[in-house]
Amino acid sequence: MGDLFDRHRTTLGAALQAAQDRGYWSAFPEVPSGKVYGETAKEDGLSAYRARLGRPFELPGHPGMKAVGQEVSPYGFALGITYPAADAETLVAASQSAAPAWAGASPEIRVGVCLEILARLNRMSFEMANAVMHTTGQAFAMAFQAGGPHAQDRGLEAVAYAWAEMTRTPARATWVKPQGKGEPIVIEKHWRIVPRGISLVIGCQTFPTWNSYPGLFASLATGNTLIVKPHPGAILPLALTVQVACEVLAEEGFPADIVLLAADEAGAEITRDLVQHPAVAIIDYTGSNAFGDWVSENAATRQVYTEEAGVNSIVIGATDDFAGMCANIAFSLSLYSGQMCTAPQNIYVPRGGIETNEGPKNFDAIAAGVAAAVDALLSDPARAAGVCGAIANPATLARVEAARGLGRLVRDSAPLTGVEGARTATPMILAVDGDQTPAYEEERFGPIAFVIAVENAAEGIARAAGLAHRKGAITAALYETDDARIAAAADAFAAAGVNLSVNLTGGIFVNQSAAFSDFHVTGANPAGNACLTDTAFVANRFRVAMWRRPMAA
Amino acid sequence: MGDLFDRHRTTLGAALQAAQDRGYWSAFPEVPSGKVYGETAKEDGLSAYRARLGRPFELPGHPGMKAVGQEVSPYGFALGITYPAADAETLVAASQSAAPAWAGASPEIRVGVCLEILARLNRMSFEMANAVMHTTGQAFAMAFQAGGPHAQDRGLEAVAYAWAEMTRTPARATWVKPQGKGEPIVIEKHWRIVPRGISLVIGCQTFPTWNSYPGLFASLATGNTLIVKPHPGAILPLALTVQVACEVLAEEGFPADIVLLAADEAGAEITRDLVQHPAVAIIDYTGSNAFGDWVSENAATRQVYTEEAGVNSIVIGATDDFAGMCANIAFSLSLYSGQMCTAPQNIYVPRGGIETNEGPKNFDAIAAGVAAAVDALLSDPARAAGVCGAIANPATLARVEAARGLGRLVRDSAPLTGVEGARTATPMILAVDGDQTPAYEEERFGPIAFVIAVENAAEGIARAAGLAHRKGAITAALYETDDARIAAAADAFAAAGVNLSVNLTGGIFVNQSAAFSDFHVTGANPAGNACLTDTAFVANRFRVAMWRRPMAA
Repeated sequence: MGDLFDRHRTTLGAALQAAQDRGYWSAFPEVPSGKVYGETAKEDGLSAYRARLGRPFELPGHPGMKAVGQEVSPYGFALGITYPAADAETLVAASQSAAPAWAGASPEIRVGVCLEILARLNRMSFEMANAVMHTTGQAFAMAFQAGGPHAQDRGLEAVAYAWAEMTRTPARATWVKPQGKGEPIVIEKHWRIVPRGISLVIGCQTFPTWNSYPGLFASLATGNTLIVKPHPGAILPLALTVQVACEVLAEEGFPADIVLLAADEAGAEITRDLVQHPAVAIIDYTGSNAFGDWVSENAATRQVYTEEAGVNSIVIGATDDFAGMCANIAFSLSLYSGQMCTAPQNIYVPRGGIETNEGPKNFDAIAAGVAAAVDALLSDPARAAGVCGAIANPATLARVEAARGLGRLVRDSAPLTGVEGARTATPMILAVDGDQTPAYEEERFGPIAFVIAVENAAEGIARAAGLAHRKGAITAALYETDDARIAAAADAFAAAGVNLSVNLTGGIFVNQSAAFSDFHVTGANPAGNACLTDTAFVANRFRVAMWRRPMAA
Repeated sequence: MGDLFDRHRTTLGAALQAAQDRGYWSAFPEVPSGKVYGETAKEDGLSAYRARLGRPFELPGHPGMKAVGQEVSPYGFALGITYPAADAETLVAASQSAAPAWAGASPEIRVGVCLEILARLNRMSFEMANAVMHTTGQAFAMAFQAGGPHAQDRGLEAVAYAWAEMTRTPARATWVKPQGKGEPIVIEKHWRIVPRGISLVIGCQTFPTWNSYPGLFASLATGNTLIVKPHPGAILPLALTVQVACEVLAEEGFPADIVLLAADEAGAEITRDLVQHPAVAIIDYTGSNAFGDWVSENAATRQVYTEEAGVNSIVIGATDDFAGMCANIAFSLSLYSGQMCTAPQNIYVPRGGIETNEGPKNFDAIAAGVAAAVDALLSDPARAAGVCGAIANPATLARVEAARGLGRLVRDSAPLTGVEGARTATPMILAVDGDQTPAYEEERFGPIAFVIAVENAAEGIARAAGLAHRKGAITAALYETDDARIAAAADAFAAAGVNLSVNLTGGIFVNQSAAFSDFHVTGANPAGNACLTDTAFVANRFRVAMWRRPMAA
């Protein structure tokens, strides 16, 4: 049974090294290319996805009291897939029945299974891309990367941390305590990993795999059983994940119920029943602060890991590449129409303008520069569709409409052209004064941005960092040419628990977080109580128990 | 300023190696010997302790609105020491003022300071022994070891884990992402440790240093400021600790307020104010389940680490050393009169008796054997005083009285002789049937033990493990000669989150937990939500923040 571990041992070693070095590394190629994935991979993936539509999803032997499923693609059609669904009690009972076999497996076996699941998920990345695209609204290229290889890399990272933590303590040691001139006391000691129990993963609609894989694989590798509760609007990507996991588990002789799907429908969610069930020992949650607060307060377990929401900021102090800055910000605002937990919302700009390589630019010129860069980026309809994708949730469109009156309109939001039937919206940009905090200090999820007039960059940093401290933020960006001011900003954002990107231009964006290098979420402000990609995220998902006895000296 | 780190670098390296190997190792000699600590160390320590009595305790510059202190030695006299005391708001404000200097210090500096504090505490182990003896009631030898070197070893272990966790992520890395035939994207990344804030350590009366040092040093090394809240009956040991910490901090140019003492008096505790203060970011708590539940439910922070209480069990299935078994159990029941979180309370014995090297022994013979071994151990008054010490809290004596009717008296409790003025009690042993769960399934802290008649050892294991799962347990012991039964017991207790000792005879006891080898508390049952001595206990006391910017390729 250790074959899978051996098969993937090299990948695991490389992942551990990468997580230590924190330079660039990836196990799963992000380019959706036939040269990497096979010449027919793209067509095969599309066919496989299409074959899922309009019929029941196959999860052999999965507990099912009824069939549910009302997913509708943001591109304008119903998926028509139904999934086996059961109530919380049934799922918990099935999970508990499967638990002893998984808890009793060695770390090698469990990690081998997890690595094989990831490898198979990688091979079906084109199918997953279509599934993610038509549940989240992400454009195809982004759905491929964020839903496939990038999510798989994050899953691998969690497995690597789990391996390191589980093998930190030896399985056995001999403890020899000298007794002066007498015989030493000799004790043999044996340690084992004890999983916590049932791990509940609550997915979100916008990044069903990327945001779920860290907790999912961290819990699975450390011996817990899983109940995977997708957002009712984005079941398919996690159903595919569960299906692959169950296949590998069954092939290796384990009960498939070690990984269960908790499918449900909007208005009849079973999330609360699962969160409050005393047998649920670990909860990973991605979603709104409001429901995140409820989860934290009502969970039967104390082991709750959340990624909630925050307000991400950009502060503009100075730049030696005005066009590059505007283009970079424009892309960050437009990518997936601002529906990323890492997307910026607030752009703080000095009221009196800034110095640039094009000479001084006043507030209005900066706001207009960003707006013009958005227009340029989205001028070609095909490129616009590829950048913006579609809007996952109708409520986001309503939010855009409601925001229109919150400030002076610098750039209005509009539907994309050439994607009839899809729910789309380009970025809206509003100018406000720093005093208008009710407008911009709320998180307004979606393609809504504020250019905020402040006295100077220092005030912008103070406002952005203070807001992060109070309401949370996952990313921050700064444009500044003075090293002392950069250092001061780094101090302020670090104290507020925000990762900072400075002077981004060209092909790297504040929204992006690279596996094995960037930690995602710090856990140090209200945007989330945990980093999703560090040791602390994994080390408490299991406990260590010992037995010891004297040996003859 | 890195001198302290260099001075103790070898110790730190050895501690890290020991924690990995988990064999026997200790940095701080446990033998209260003049050869180790200096020929006059014992007398010097006693004199230093005596010089503290009957006067205000010196903490120069410490916030103080009034003086408090009503400690009374369990050996029968008032200490007469007063301590500066301030309300929660004042302490929090002082802690916050001191925070930036400590947060800004490098891990090397902070770890160096912590290691120097531990080294100085070690040198004053004889003074600490007297302080611990006359607040907890421990006999001198135990007070020296548990209050001094053993506690210091546990502190060092926490510092070592903190060092490993803080240095896991490099301070800087260069991330180079290939771009096909184009220039790679090159990003410089900088990471820093961000402490959580104020760390509150709530001590207990029975092990004021041993139980506090893991959390105290884990939080201090990772950059948090400390508010140390001793039990009103055992302030002196932690006041000495705070004093040493402040001395080292001040010498190194840091504000002494980085480590504050929150002294108070019984009936006017400030614990609740501190627990509920929104600026308190981490809480370490040792004490009762009842107040532990209150702390967990009412704390303003989610970072709460508890060691509460449980019911520890011994199961007797068979033995090939009946006398050795009885003697070993007798010592575990008598040591510090059962006032240890690791002391056994319940002894499960088959109703029909067991096989031993002395032939079959029935239930009554086993109960009588343990009782006789206690009598023998305590027959010499000086040795009895050295083993049992005194009773820390008058409520414990009342509990012994109240327990007398709970079963058939096998051995009665009595005061020690020759220690007039001291509050003492030898172990009470009661025989009950397995059905009498209300008697023995309550935690009855102190020198109270039950010998419980069960059908067989398997029933005893099931009852003991089930009780641990429901109400918590830190230790378990088993006497058994069959390897398959030992393995089954190891499985049962591991699943209940209890560390198990098998066939202990001679000079090692179930109560004992060795630094760098035994994990103390698993965190997997109600006896505590955390292991006090592992990575997970340390890794979440700080967060990591990054800033990054593009570099020329």
